[in-house]
Amino acid sequence: MAHEIKRIVSGMRPTGPLHLGHYFGVIENWIALQKEYECYFFVADWHALTSEYTDPEKIKGFTYELALDWFSAGLDPEKSIFFIQSEVKEHAELNLLLSMITPVGWLERNPTYKEVKQELESKKDLNTFGFLGYPVLMSADILMYKASHVPVGEDQLPHLELCREIARRFNYLYGETFPEPQSMVTEAARLPGLDGRKMSKSYGNAIFLKEDFDSVRQKVFSMLTDTNRMRLKDPGDPKNCNLFPYFKIFDPNMDVSEIVDGCKNATRGCTDCKKILFEMIVKFLEPIHKKRKEYEKGTLIMDILHEGSKKARGKAQQTMDEVRKKINLTY
Amino acid sequence: MAHEIKRIVSGMRPTGPLHLGHYFGVIENWIALQKEYECYFFVADWHALTSEYTDPEKIKGFTYELALDWFSAGLDPEKSIFFIQSEVKEHAELNLLLSMITPVGWLERNPTYKEVKQELESKKDLNTFGFLGYPVLMSADILMYKASHVPVGEDQLPHLELCREIARRFNYLYGETFPEPQSMVTEAARLPGLDGRKMSKSYGNAIFLKEDFDSVRQKVFSMLTDTNRMRLKDPGDPKNCNLFPYFKIFDPNMDVSEIVDGCKNATRGCTDCKKILFEMIVKFLEPIHKKRKEYEKGTLIMDILHEGSKKARGKAQQTMDEVRKKINLTY
Repeated sequence: MAHEIKRIVSGMRPTGPLHLGHYFGVIENWIALQKEYECYFFVADWHALTSEYTDPEKIKGFTYELALDWFSAGLDPEKSIFFIQSEVKEHAELNLLLSMITPVGWLERNPTYKEVKQELESKKDLNTFGFLGYPVLMSADILMYKASHVPVGEDQLPHLELCREIARRFNYLYGETFPEPQSMVTEAARLPGLDGRKMSKSYGNAIFLKEDFDSVRQKVFSMLTDTNRMRLKDPGDPKNCNLFPYFKIFDPNMDVSEIVDGCKNATRGCTDCKKILFEMIVKFLEPIHKKRKEYEKGTLIMDILHEGSKKARGKAQQTMDEVRKKINLTY
Repeated sequence: MAHEIKRIVSGMRPTGPLHLGHYFGVIENWIALQKEYECYFFVADWHALTSEYTDPEKIKGFTYELALDWFSAGLDPEKSIFFIQSEVKEHAELNLLLSMITPVGWLERNPTYKEVKQELESKKDLNTFGFLGYPVLMSADILMYKASHVPVGEDQLPHLELCREIARRFNYLYGETFPEPQSMVTEAARLPGLDGRKMSKSYGNAIFLKEDFDSVRQKVFSMLTDTNRMRLKDPGDPKNCNLFPYFKIFDPNMDVSEIVDGCKNATRGCTDCKKILFEMIVKFLEPIHKKRKEYEKGTLIMDILHEGSKKARGKAQQTMDEVRKKINLTY
């Protein structure tokens, strides 16, 4: 049996600064994957265009910010390839070729397509051909590097299934070319937002990786805890507290029994918990902010991304040589 | 006022050898355009994939044949740029970018899409994303070279209108970039098929540009003339004759009055007409066959196409530099 290739492809759309929800949802996982897999991580700027086409100006800055967040948060540019999607033009060609063999029905029935379209319908016109073709472009991204595994959230599973179907169809029509990538489902949104809902920039309930500590303090100290506990003397319940779940996420080994007792017996106040959490977040963010300062120097970030794009392009050209030979269009 | 650029972009799908119907419908027109316009003519092999994706093997040979037919028929590779679509990868990138701003509704409502899909539905599965996006790719082809004019048949007018709408939308969103190409409607199918229907390979009623003269003779002599004229002694009517319209197309200056009289008065037979037409076609095809022999030598055809693709790519890169700056995705 041939040596099994363990290769990851994953991307993020450059649509804003990363927050703690992203860290515990995606970045923490990517950092772990870096140790075991050959990884291709990319800034999905063409994907961002599918929804931001009326205002692409912002994408450029967010690309820089995204990579800065990545490396500050601990992703290691020495270990994996980090690239910008739009700098590897081969993705556009593979996208076009895959579009020829992808039934429109597969895309229209895609549940994510329907949901996102409905969700954003009031804000943006997403009835575009490009948005409908999102999973085709995503398939091109993944298949280009012959990924063995793709880390996805539950909501992205239909997209990956589509990618696998497209790979099968290509292999059937033109000969074995692409492995079918396996999904690695990552736990969705481990860290809730400050208000208990999903952490999201648009909900205004996020703490960003680059957030300064004054602002963090303000946000933590205005978190709602157990709203049934009106006074310090009232007993509370950590189950009803937005803040309590943070402890175990920031420190899985933390002994919270004392806190639980103190809350239930009304022997400690919420301010005590907020102080503890604030210290924990500061401790977590400090090295990130420090690294950020390093990575902000000169043109370091763009140098890494351009260099990574060059490497990715080398691999992409190999794949496209093979794909072109398989489809065999010209002499 | 700035000097007005007169630039043509037009392509043909490599799906089979050219016949006389193509000559009088397209090629004759292209030859005339070569004299007055800067022309980009291309083999639309990616477009061919939209319908031939299950069997792309044939496209390669047809690309060669198509160019061989072009130059044999009198198109001059010195005067214009002749290229292969799939060798100018920039088309795929522009296609992707234009797809972001093209509403799906524009494509679904496209009457040509509905017609062709219905027509071919029994034979081919055209419910693909690529086939739906045909007009987007066509727009990329045209806008890439900032065509001022596009020669189209009546049936292609909706596609060109879509291209103009896409150009307007791009200019509106990202700033003036693309001129709106004007249509030059070419007369549809001047030369009917041997049976009076539209000349088409699939109807088996075509004479090909490369057809040998024995085969031409056989086809011409088995043409149906006036079917009401059973015997030589019966008077006929050129209006009911499949053959008669050919005369004026092959020789617009021909005096046909004697033929008309002879037919109506039953003083000449259909065989006489067939002899004349056969001679005319031979006279027409002889220089084409002679040129064909020249162009068949060595790698001449592919050399021309590769060289043309290189030139086209130079222009395409200029356009894409501008497009990328306008959308302004990366540093």
